[in-house]
This record gives sequence, C-alpha cells and structure tokens, in this order.
Amino acid sequence: MNKSIFYHAGCPVCVSAEQDILNLINPSDVEVVHLGNDRAKIAEAEKAGVESVPALVTPNGNVLHINFGASMADVKG
Amino acid sequence: MNKSIFYHAGCPVCVSAEQDILNLINPSDVEVVHLGNDRAKIAEAEKAGVESVPALVTPNGNVLHINFGASMADVKG
Repeated sequence: MNKSIFYHAGCPVCVSAEQDILNLINPSDVEVVHLGNDRAKIAEAEKAGVESVPALVTPNGNVLHINFGASMADVKG
Repeated sequence: MNKSIFYHAGCPVCVSAEQDILNLINPSDVEVVHLGNDRAKIAEAEKAGVESVPALVTPNGNVLHINFGASMADVKG
C-alpha cells in the first residue's frame, strides 16, 4: 500500500487527530507533515486539495478533512 | 483493539469516505452504522458527540468528523 499523508500544523485539534489516526492506521503507512515547520510543503498540500488541517490524503488521492483545526489561509499566515 | 464505529447516512460524501476508511483501517476493526437505515442508533451517535456525518468514533471515544456530508439535524429529517 502506498503511504497516506497526514498534514497538520501543530494545533491542539491537529495533535489529537494525529494520535487517533496513528492508533487506527499502521504508523509506517502514514507520513506526517507539519506545515508550520515544513512550509515548503504548503503548496503540495494545496495542490492535493487540502483546504484545512488536520487532513489525511489517502493513497488514491482523496482528501479526508478531519475535524477542523485551521484553514490553509491561517496556516499560511 | 476495540472497534471504531463509522456513522454515515448514505450520502455520496459518506460513501466515498467509508471506502477510504475501510481501505485504511482493517475492516474487521470498524463497525459501519447507516443512520438512515438504523434510526435507533441516532441517539447513540449524538451521545457519542457526532454532529455530522460521516464521522468515525474511535475506540477511545474521540469523534473524527470526516469531510461533511450532512448535519445530524438533516439525518433526523
């Protein structure tokens, strides 16, 4: 299976969702990207269709927006 | 691991998210509840904190609202 990518920005909602996702999915199947620390990935996330964080991009390219921590506009600051 | 419960109501967003979740998580670890067909479970879902569908309630009781298909008010009709 290809990896999923979990995008977050360190917000409390993000951290809580990250822990839940890593409990549910094999952590080796998920790449975790912190957009606050790795700002070069913001464009990649937007291109994938991420509108808010936290979000999980599945191996087939679907975007699952999980709860709501912050909009991408907030992440870009 | 205890089971997660995936609540949905048959909407297109729900069906798409269900397929993604069942690809990511071992299907034997997820109970799928269709609130449109199993209306007795609506109160249980609301008590768990589900505000919209699709939503996944994790084994530790956290609610992950995934994208947005319909509010619980819509589900109750």
